[in-house]
Amino acid sequence: MNHPIISITTDFGQLNGFVGVMKGVIWGIAPKAHIADITHDIPAQNVRLGAYALWRVVPYFPPGSVHIAVVDPGVGTHRRPIGLSIGDQSFILPDNGLITPILEDGEVSGQPIQIVHLNNPKYWLPEVSHTFHGRDIFAPTGAHLARGVPLRALGDPITDPVRLEFSRPKQTPSGWEAHITIIDVFGNLTTDLPAKAVTDAKQVTFKLRGHTIQGLVTSYGHRENGDLIALIDSENYIEISVVNGNAGNQIGAQIGDTVEVVINE
Amino acid sequence: MNHPIISITTDFGQLNGFVGVMKGVIWGIAPKAHIADITHDIPAQNVRLGAYALWRVVPYFPPGSVHIAVVDPGVGTHRRPIGLSIGDQSFILPDNGLITPILEDGEVSGQPIQIVHLNNPKYWLPEVSHTFHGRDIFAPTGAHLARGVPLRALGDPITDPVRLEFSRPKQTPSGWEAHITIIDVFGNLTTDLPAKAVTDAKQVTFKLRGHTIQGLVTSYGHRENGDLIALIDSENYIEISVVNGNAGNQIGAQIGDTVEVVINE
Amino acid sequence: MNHPIISITTDFGQLNGFVGVMKGVIWGIAPKAHIADITHDIPAQNVRLGAYALWRVVPYFPPGSVHIAVVDPGVGTHRRPIGLSIGDQSFILPDNGLITPILEDGEVSGQPIQIVHLNNPKYWLPEVSHTFHGRDIFAPTGAHLARGVPLRALGDPITDPVRLEFSRPKQTPSGWEAHITIIDVFGNLTTDLPAKAVTDAKQVTFKLRGHTIQGLVTSYGHRENGDLIALIDSENYIEISVVNGNAGNQIGAQIGDTVEVVINE
Repeated sequence: MNHPIISITTDFGQLNGFVGVMKGVIWGIAPKAHIADITHDIPAQNVRLGAYALWRVVPYFPPGSVHIAVVDPGVGTHRRPIGLSIGDQSFILPDNGLITPILEDGEVSGQPIQIVHLNNPKYWLPEVSHTFHGRDIFAPTGAHLARGVPLRALGDPITDPVRLEFSRPKQTPSGWEAHITIIDVFGNLTTDLPAKAVTDAKQVTFKLRGHTIQGLVTSYGHRENGDLIALIDSENYIEISVVNGNAGNQIGAQIGDTVEVVINE
Repeated sequence: MNHPIISITTDFGQLNGFVGVMKGVIWGIAPKAHIADITHDIPAQNVRLGAYALWRVVPYFPPGSVHIAVVDPGVGTHRRPIGLSIGDQSFILPDNGLITPILEDGEVSGQPIQIVHLNNPKYWLPEVSHTFHGRDIFAPTGAHLARGVPLRALGDPITDPVRLEFSRPKQTPSGWEAHITIIDVFGNLTTDLPAKAVTDAKQVTFKLRGHTIQGLVTSYGHRENGDLIALIDSENYIEISVVNGNAGNQIGAQIGDTVEVVINE
Repeated sequence: MNHPIISITTDFGQLNGFVGVMKGVIWGIAPKAHIADITHDIPAQNVRLGAYALWRVVPYFPPGSVHIAVVDPGVGTHRRPIGLSIGDQSFILPDNGLITPILEDGEVSGQPIQIVHLNNPKYWLPEVSHTFHGRDIFAPTGAHLARGVPLRALGDPITDPVRLEFSRPKQTPSGWEAHITIIDVFGNLTTDLPAKAVTDAKQVTFKLRGHTIQGLVTSYGHRENGDLIALIDSENYIEISVVNGNAGNQIGAQIGDTVEVVINE
């Protein structure tokens, strides 16, 4: 393989070199790999936000990419390290639900799926600590996979990965009950409502935290600075924003907040 | 081309994987590219600080580098995406003034300059969102350019890029009125006064926020901890610093502050 | 050399592009190099924490890696830039003690060691500023070294690198006086006591800041959320943690705090 691509998603932050050392391990095994940092600022131990971050970026990676994700409150316990191939992408991560939304998308769209328990120590570092499997198990296993070792060689097949429940919009008599799933760095509020649930951009009203937004706009630049707006985000979900402002701060929104969506017909 | 070099400068932060997904897109098109993050911590929507950051690093990149910069309050409106070749460097960015200081330097020094409106969708992702042109237009176009597609193929030539006005020092009867342009991570205060405006390091006085600094020193280590000093920064502009301290915090300086420069003759 | 590996450790933060420009310089000289960021969030000028960060990651890098580290309060003074080869790893950094723990480990384990003063300007940028040797001396010199220029060509041999004193545990009548050396991004407290000093995981008590911890556990997941625990960290030192919490914040620990270790026999 020419230049295999590996992505890394963690809650390790930048301070302590935990990600840098994983790269040293990876390049010792797969010297030609390109490594993309997705984010290392997942709030500590927040598997759910890690899962969302990974799920949003994977569709844009080239076939054959290997995604290593480590948000791992169970490190050193009996939680399994797992490897998955879903369609043309592969994943190396703890078995705690980090993969759930990607796995469910793969199942819904009928992609070929393989899952193994990463229990073959031949592909780990020779010495494995109890607290840093990112360096000792996930990085070396992911590097071997990127280099061409087949998934099946990394461990035994399993069929029961841990699944987390993620919020879903609920249909209501007047439209939908949606929920805020992500607050991004600009304070934009992503919801769990797919854009296709809103067929007429003018005939819809959004209510959250006492605020009402009438209709969808095309992008931030179509209203005045400071206006609270609803639009379709870059992954085709409904998003609530403030033009050149921070919606999260301005209305005090939290992940999990309900957004009432009224379809006016 | 062997290993093309791409730099990325944004206000996307690290949290949400916006930069990581751009790398996935780039490597899908230009699998051998090296990608350097310049900064992703430009304050949200601050085109001016983005322009300074880019302008300071570009002269140190090898010929043929492609610089993608996305500080883009106008995403999804009629603002144009543009591509430029200035001397031996290329640029892919929104047409909002991000390129101004580099473009003006190139014009002053008589470098060959080409500018196009990136309006050839052949080099975009097949589906373009209204809110994330970094991923959908800038990353793929930049990757194609780095791979060897000529700039001219990416869109139609234009001659009227948006220009922002940047602060310039003003000559005064006693010397110069300079201005603080950048406050760096150490709290050092860069001004818009080129070092060559001060010909005698001893015969100059700087006044800002009620403080007076006599003369230029060579580097931080030439005075005592806590001393307020003036020196020549690494881009050959006059800088105000505190030895092993934070000048920005210590004197409450802000970007745009006036620095009175008295040449004593 | 195929793809040489360079790591970079600094206190430059992400804001100003200081690291990005170093990568531009490196790739201009060593176009095939892979570059791993270790951390750029060392507190400003804190040579001691920079030394710890580097020391923890180096053993995991492949033979032939070049580590550039810049925490450099003495930039522009007479402090020397130095290059070292210790075993199969190389280092390019200011002569201020950044290398001390790695150098002492190398001496203790009898590895071959070479040290030079980086005083051959042939391998610097043509113009050297007084304030940014990371870009002008360390990056280009490290890139030449990674490309295959022998260390000896970079400057004259020296034998007296600056050494910092690092905390060591002290033996006491009842066990050890250990000290907190690192507080990581999760709030875990690393001490200077090697795990091998504790031979029976049950027969040991740790006391710090009025708290008492009985025994060592294997990993975070073996106690309840919020419990204060002691365990062996990923570099085989004793660590104090709070399960799914932040020990640093919870007990107000500081770097340098004493941890009383009582061996119960």
